[in-house]
Amino acid sequence: MSHPLKKENASTLENAMQLMIQTFHQYSGNEGDKYTLSRAELKELLTTELGNYLGNAQDKEAVDKVMNDLDSNNDGEVDFTEFVILVGALTVACNDFFLEFNEKGEKK
Amino acid sequence: MSHPLKKENASTLENAMQLMIQTFHQYSGNEGDKYTLSRAELKELLTTELGNYLGNAQDKEAVDKVMNDLDSNNDGEVDFTEFVILVGALTVACNDFFLEFNEKGEKK
Repeated sequence: MSHPLKKENASTLENAMQLMIQTFHQYSGNEGDKYTLSRAELKELLTTELGNYLGNAQDKEAVDKVMNDLDSNNDGEVDFTEFVILVGALTVACNDFFLEFNEKGEKK
Repeated sequence: MSHPLKKENASTLENAMQLMIQTFHQYSGNEGDKYTLSRAELKELLTTELGNYLGNAQDKEAVDKVMNDLDSNNDGEVDFTEFVILVGALTVACNDFFLEFNEKGEKK
């Protein structure tokens, strides 16, 4: 039986979803509950996987807010749903930056 | 000046975020507001990009619920934030299916 998430003809969006699942489990399995991120695992994931975006983000306040929300709501563990909410919020921030960048380019 | 979202050394997670942004704009630009999905654009995106997952999803009720919520809240246009919420909910459903599949495999 083939793995249900390893499609040979996966679409671009299905690839994106698979990459999110793959990334989470790559870090969540290191210590403690293998299906949640400890604070240490979360920090490693953010530093390794989001260094470019968190370093470059124009809307730093939005990123800080997401991080604070994530901290106050969890009990030291971040589950997959919380991780997806974080990635989603960052992706929306990146998209806003992308649109602003494009608009500036069009005006020149 | 290089494009801010085209990193040469993008991480796995940054690639996933870029693929979500890329997919949305690939369909949103076809008609009307180029930064939102019309009903026709949304239908094309779902059929083309999520055929494998929507066809295979075990938790069909969850998928139906997401679709209905998306329909009732919008005015015929889906913006990027609503799109990310949809993709996030589907990714969580896929992750649950993935964990269930793994647990069954371990018990055998």
